[in-house]
Amino acid sequence: MSICVLRAQMLPCKTVLSWTRGTGNRCDIARLRKCGVCYVPNLSPVSFPSRTLSNLATAHSGLARREMAENEALSRRQKVLTIDTMNANIKKVEYAVRGPIVQRAVQIEKELKEGVKKPFNEVIKANIGDAHAMGQRPVTFFRQVLALCSYPELLDDDKFPEDTKYRAQRILKACGGSSIGAYTASQGIECVRQDVSRYIERRDGGVPCDPDNIYLTTGASDGIVTMLKLLTAGEGRTRTGVMIPIPQYPLYSAAIAELGAVQLNYYLDEDKCWGLDISELQRSLQAASKHCNPRVLCIINPGNPTGQVQSRERIEDVIRFAAKERLFLMADEVYQDNVYAEGCKFYSFKKVLYEMGPEYFNTVELASFHSTSKCYMGECGMRGGYMEVINMDSEVKAQLTKLVSVRLCPPVPGQALMALVTNSPQPGEPSHAQFLKERTATLGDLAQKAKLTEEILNTVPGIRCNPVQGAMYSFPQITLPERAIREAKEKGQAPDMFYCMKLLEETGICLVPGSGFGQKEGTYHFRMTILPPADKLKILLSKVKEFHQRFTKCYS
Amino acid sequence: MSICVLRAQMLPCKTVLSWTRGTGNRCDIARLRKCGVCYVPNLSPVSFPSRTLSNLATAHSGLARREMAENEALSRRQKVLTIDTMNANIKKVEYAVRGPIVQRAVQIEKELKEGVKKPFNEVIKANIGDAHAMGQRPVTFFRQVLALCSYPELLDDDKFPEDTKYRAQRILKACGGSSIGAYTASQGIECVRQDVSRYIERRDGGVPCDPDNIYLTTGASDGIVTMLKLLTAGEGRTRTGVMIPIPQYPLYSAAIAELGAVQLNYYLDEDKCWGLDISELQRSLQAASKHCNPRVLCIINPGNPTGQVQSRERIEDVIRFAAKERLFLMADEVYQDNVYAEGCKFYSFKKVLYEMGPEYFNTVELASFHSTSKCYMGECGMRGGYMEVINMDSEVKAQLTKLVSVRLCPPVPGQALMALVTNSPQPGEPSHAQFLKERTATLGDLAQKAKLTEEILNTVPGIRCNPVQGAMYSFPQITLPERAIREAKEKGQAPDMFYCMKLLEETGICLVPGSGFGQKEGTYHFRMTILPPADKLKILLSKVKEFHQRFTKCYS
Repeated sequence: MSICVLRAQMLPCKTVLSWTRGTGNRCDIARLRKCGVCYVPNLSPVSFPSRTLSNLATAHSGLARREMAENEALSRRQKVLTIDTMNANIKKVEYAVRGPIVQRAVQIEKELKEGVKKPFNEVIKANIGDAHAMGQRPVTFFRQVLALCSYPELLDDDKFPEDTKYRAQRILKACGGSSIGAYTASQGIECVRQDVSRYIERRDGGVPCDPDNIYLTTGASDGIVTMLKLLTAGEGRTRTGVMIPIPQYPLYSAAIAELGAVQLNYYLDEDKCWGLDISELQRSLQAASKHCNPRVLCIINPGNPTGQVQSRERIEDVIRFAAKERLFLMADEVYQDNVYAEGCKFYSFKKVLYEMGPEYFNTVELASFHSTSKCYMGECGMRGGYMEVINMDSEVKAQLTKLVSVRLCPPVPGQALMALVTNSPQPGEPSHAQFLKERTATLGDLAQKAKLTEEILNTVPGIRCNPVQGAMYSFPQITLPERAIREAKEKGQAPDMFYCMKLLEETGICLVPGSGFGQKEGTYHFRMTILPPADKLKILLSKVKEFHQRFTKCYS
Repeated sequence: MSICVLRAQMLPCKTVLSWTRGTGNRCDIARLRKCGVCYVPNLSPVSFPSRTLSNLATAHSGLARREMAENEALSRRQKVLTIDTMNANIKKVEYAVRGPIVQRAVQIEKELKEGVKKPFNEVIKANIGDAHAMGQRPVTFFRQVLALCSYPELLDDDKFPEDTKYRAQRILKACGGSSIGAYTASQGIECVRQDVSRYIERRDGGVPCDPDNIYLTTGASDGIVTMLKLLTAGEGRTRTGVMIPIPQYPLYSAAIAELGAVQLNYYLDEDKCWGLDISELQRSLQAASKHCNPRVLCIINPGNPTGQVQSRERIEDVIRFAAKERLFLMADEVYQDNVYAEGCKFYSFKKVLYEMGPEYFNTVELASFHSTSKCYMGECGMRGGYMEVINMDSEVKAQLTKLVSVRLCPPVPGQALMALVTNSPQPGEPSHAQFLKERTATLGDLAQKAKLTEEILNTVPGIRCNPVQGAMYSFPQITLPERAIREAKEKGQAPDMFYCMKLLEETGICLVPGSGFGQKEGTYHFRMTILPPADKLKILLSKVKEFHQRFTKCYS
């Protein structure tokens, strides 16, 4: 056995476990028992089965536990950075979309790989809007251009259509040394910002858009956090208050916690298809103004996790409210192409603002956000995005430009992708037909799956699902038996977390409990993406149905 | 002329200027004069010559200036987000590497394009370590694999060597849906973290590295800011103090300002080749402990902007100091392959820490940072990076993992690139010879240019340049005539900013003044990259020489 004892008594067992996990070497348990410490010098890339690890842990547990505890306590006392001395705001951050349930799902996947028997063969991650991971194919045109940008020697290759080459050459020409490996302007490549601004103008029926108001970002999240950062000021009762919908996408609550701003909840009306009510905005604002300075109103449209699409009239109401109450508007519009329900249409806040006339268009401050991760693209891994700022004070804008320059530039492949999304193949160009076919198929597919999800969920007694008008999620309400709620609370778990955890363990389906997004006291939900392929989605929904019935029966 | 008046009196002239700048349309000045407002509906991608813009501005200035001022004052009063109400910490952020001198350089480039006559034909940006922009060619192997990952249909193509295909397939297999468009684990793709950890073990002669301690990042900057964020706590006299070298890379001062931590300067000794002196660390710490809680010690090795390479002994001293004073060590090691001077060698903090024995290796907390942007890669635009954390408290590590999950994942092309950098072609693999040739050529080239820069600069009376032992920059001291210093101060400019600005205007060479990095009171420097191609670098250096002589004469 390739094991040697190194400076006995020095390295705690935990370190050994962690090293051996990394190196894949077995550990001499007898020696470990004796001295409590050792290390493995031969580093080979075999992975270490978790069962062996747990045997190892058990073997240790008798003799070494006390020693480990002592070692840990000692090292805890000596550490500079501990849970008690770290940034307190970070501790308050929560992000359910990748929270404990997802960590458990990853663990279960590993167990399955190692041959642990489960009542299912695979984990289905319906927790996150990750289209490609769910089998959606990337758009050919995008990937051809990215390949050309990555390895320009391919520009001589006949396999690539002329319009992909033209796009790649245009992007490369705008890069230092004609390489996507060079830094770009911190605000983003100029010609990409021009593409974005022309896209916005087309989208909004000619409303002018200045490329100087476009900031390319590392996904929409980056833009949202940057704007909240600029807006957070004051102390105590003058601290910036940020109004967010409940249920919300937890990036908002996480960023607010990290920045030490004040989260102000306004509740969407589940009975009115997650509609937004101005009187509720008013209530939320009034309740807040005693203990902070409400300055920001965030809207997610189409809604995440709730899937509603705002009407034009409602957007006007919101804008009027923001103007009257002097709130900075942040419009999260990353699902702008994901509108499925009949009679629903996406209106950008910018367009509505413009059409409400100069009284609004010249005064209301707005930042809107878009991303390459959603819609028909689903290119989450590229971390592409942009924000457009309207009516931003020129001095603040200079500060924003300075702030983004510290991080040098957004990833260039993401910028290039944003150029392609906003300047996609046009009729007459060789890639147009295939591009259109792929986009239409993906969006049509999503529309069908939105309908399917709503329909099947609503056949389950105790599950009530609003129409999935847009975005990529259903957020049904679930009725939980009193006994389940009690048991969850005894375990210190949110009742819907208790439910989702059981669902995961029994079926392999990974959903996010409603408590991670916020919900009305006493109601319970889960968020489920509509992204799995239709046949898989059907199986998934029928498993959820069976589970819900079993769960209800078991706890009644 | 394609111009129409829209809602007269509503849109301030500034908006028009900014719109027309974006759209490239001409503006009807007479109309503008009359009503002060208008807008251009036809949006075409022609760019707007800045001379026309400045004519336009002049035309306006008489009649419209008052109106603009009124409009601006009005809109200022109404704005939610102003320079007075924004995040005060952001206002303190400075980032010289992309500061005013670079903005002016970009402006001059535009002027040259528009035909404005200058005493030079191009701007040479020696302000930033942007290798590809300076003509360095990307490594073929990296770009082939990236192209394959972007467009896996190319896996059937005979043009690509087998080892590029193998690497691409391995990365794709680790991605959800086999697409680099899927989100990855927030800490980074597991097999990439394994590659990184094996790379570190090889680099450090077998010192074990646990992939669980590796966090992939969006460039090194992301990791550095994330660590500083975790470490920032307390208020007033208990606020976290962060020791940084002076001169420093201004990401550090910027992040410290943004987080509201306390910047603690320790000065590098220019007379000892920018050496680090422990007594200076002690002085800095002592001075600080009255007004804050010093908890972090940042080291940049090889040095940026100063180019020195730390000896093994000095690193040991620093570690002993950190252990004694209970400081969290942050080692910025992004230039680890960029070591040129004879007798100099890169030692990682991790390796030295390990070899100092368990008394140190089990207690001293360390985070070290690396990047795909520097060394022989120069892939800045990909925003790839990693950090390794050593002896991090397990609860804090869980908080770190949670924190990075909010931003979902680092850009996947950057992660893929990091896998290639740390798992490069091996002897026997088809790409090995070319890879080695390219890497050797680039590093050899840099070594020559480091020598060349030092030698030529030291021929100039009034310029004194330490050996460029490593990294990518020279940071020579310049002697400025008293009269120049006075004139600069009268203008409210740092004297070396005054110098660099004149250099830019007269020669087109863009350098960063030493004041942007910090320097000993009364000394003046500039930072210049050694990246331009050798022939261009020679011209650049001779121009700097001429300029310095002219400047000295003129102000003597």
